[in-house]
Amino acid sequence: MTEPIIGIIAGAGPFAGLDLATKILEQTDASCDQEYLPMVSVSTPGEIEDRTRFLLGESEENPAYALAKNFLDLQTMNAKVIGMPCNTAHAAPILEVFHQEIAPHAKSARYLDMIQETVNFIGSECPTVKNIGILSTLGTWKAGFYPELLEPECYNTLVLDDSQQTRIHEEALFHKKHGIKVQANPVTKTARNILLEGVESLQKMNADAVILGCTEIPIGIPERKIGRTFIIDPGLILARALIRETAPEKLLPWNWNN
Amino acid sequence: MTEPIIGIIAGAGPFAGLDLATKILEQTDASCDQEYLPMVSVSTPGEIEDRTRFLLGESEENPAYALAKNFLDLQTMNAKVIGMPCNTAHAAPILEVFHQEIAPHAKSARYLDMIQETVNFIGSECPTVKNIGILSTLGTWKAGFYPELLEPECYNTLVLDDSQQTRIHEEALFHKKHGIKVQANPVTKTARNILLEGVESLQKMNADAVILGCTEIPIGIPERKIGRTFIIDPGLILARALIRETAPEKLLPWNWNN
Repeated sequence: MTEPIIGIIAGAGPFAGLDLATKILEQTDASCDQEYLPMVSVSTPGEIEDRTRFLLGESEENPAYALAKNFLDLQTMNAKVIGMPCNTAHAAPILEVFHQEIAPHAKSARYLDMIQETVNFIGSECPTVKNIGILSTLGTWKAGFYPELLEPECYNTLVLDDSQQTRIHEEALFHKKHGIKVQANPVTKTARNILLEGVESLQKMNADAVILGCTEIPIGIPERKIGRTFIIDPGLILARALIRETAPEKLLPWNWNN
Repeated sequence: MTEPIIGIIAGAGPFAGLDLATKILEQTDASCDQEYLPMVSVSTPGEIEDRTRFLLGESEENPAYALAKNFLDLQTMNAKVIGMPCNTAHAAPILEVFHQEIAPHAKSARYLDMIQETVNFIGSECPTVKNIGILSTLGTWKAGFYPELLEPECYNTLVLDDSQQTRIHEEALFHKKHGIKVQANPVTKTARNILLEGVESLQKMNADAVILGCTEIPIGIPERKIGRTFIIDPGLILARALIRETAPEKLLPWNWNN
């Protein structure tokens, strides 16, 4: 293969991996099969420990090692720009080990950081925003990397209280019957309603924007705005960044309306 | 990786590739990320000539070579059972060359034939069916492999007339604005209505079942039954076959209702 190829670390979680791939197609300016960009994807969910469990100390197995192996396998498959649609895996205790593992072997492939892309996107596409709410897993909430990156840029960050945050995690995302991790097409009303309540609580705290900080959340909240609040989907932003780095002429213009 | 891995030749076309991957997740008995099966997927749509164009003699480039290369790349990635969600690519002038190309190099990986799986499925899950209608691209229609496989099994096969078949191909599938090849999420009403008219015409010819013989068609017709007619989705059948060959204990029971 001679073209630059997009690589997806797709197993954390599997529905988020497909969601990213779908968004790459949707954000590409193409009028027939042949005009879409080349992609490779590897999904080994059974080998990747739950990111939140590791961050909360419930497991000693750092998912970074399996994720780094995925990166290197994608490089072998000729991927040049690689993304990972998992917010929680961007917590420092995971991401730092991931980078240590890939650094000695990374040659032709480059890692594109979803969280950094999201912060850049907010700066360029939502210049009026000051207060940013974050919906996420418990792991991302506890790791606090969104506030850490956003506050030095002069944003106020808002998060849910302990009980509502736990409800998002345990009921909307990880519930074994109605959670999006196991029922994504269609998302259950229960899961969507819990997520919408979360958005509403953040709106009541004066959030101008809400980051959907777990890549399964946008499957339940596909809106780009709710009322006057910008809804920020890091997976969509990563999809666009992967196209921009591969074939910028094929990136569709940004649009808040669809 | 020690587990058997599912491989997907995902570029013909790109939305069909993702649709197959989604169906593999949906048909898997899993209650958390870690219980889903490992998958690798390669999509190089720019290198794969349009299958119908080749079959109609509008192009001399046989897409078989690029598809065979995808197969071998997936084998390198440790895929053990590989599927290709493109009906038209199963026409003999393509599939025979594909098999000639992979035969000398196929080692640990095995190809699972979507069309043969579909014929087997109809025999086991729709035992009362006699008359089978086929909706497809022009290439699959012209190649006629569904009738060739089904008629020796004592089924009557029904196809649309030339003008209605051309409308399905050019308007519902390949149209550069409203065709499913470029607008799949959501599918346009125009595309869905043309496909539904096709189903209705086949029903008027007494079809007991209709094969959605292009992997983009089920994106527009997700129903499993319309009236009393069984709607047969080869991509869904291939998804189930890939799970069955990899981890049969994880295959959800078959259900005509969802």
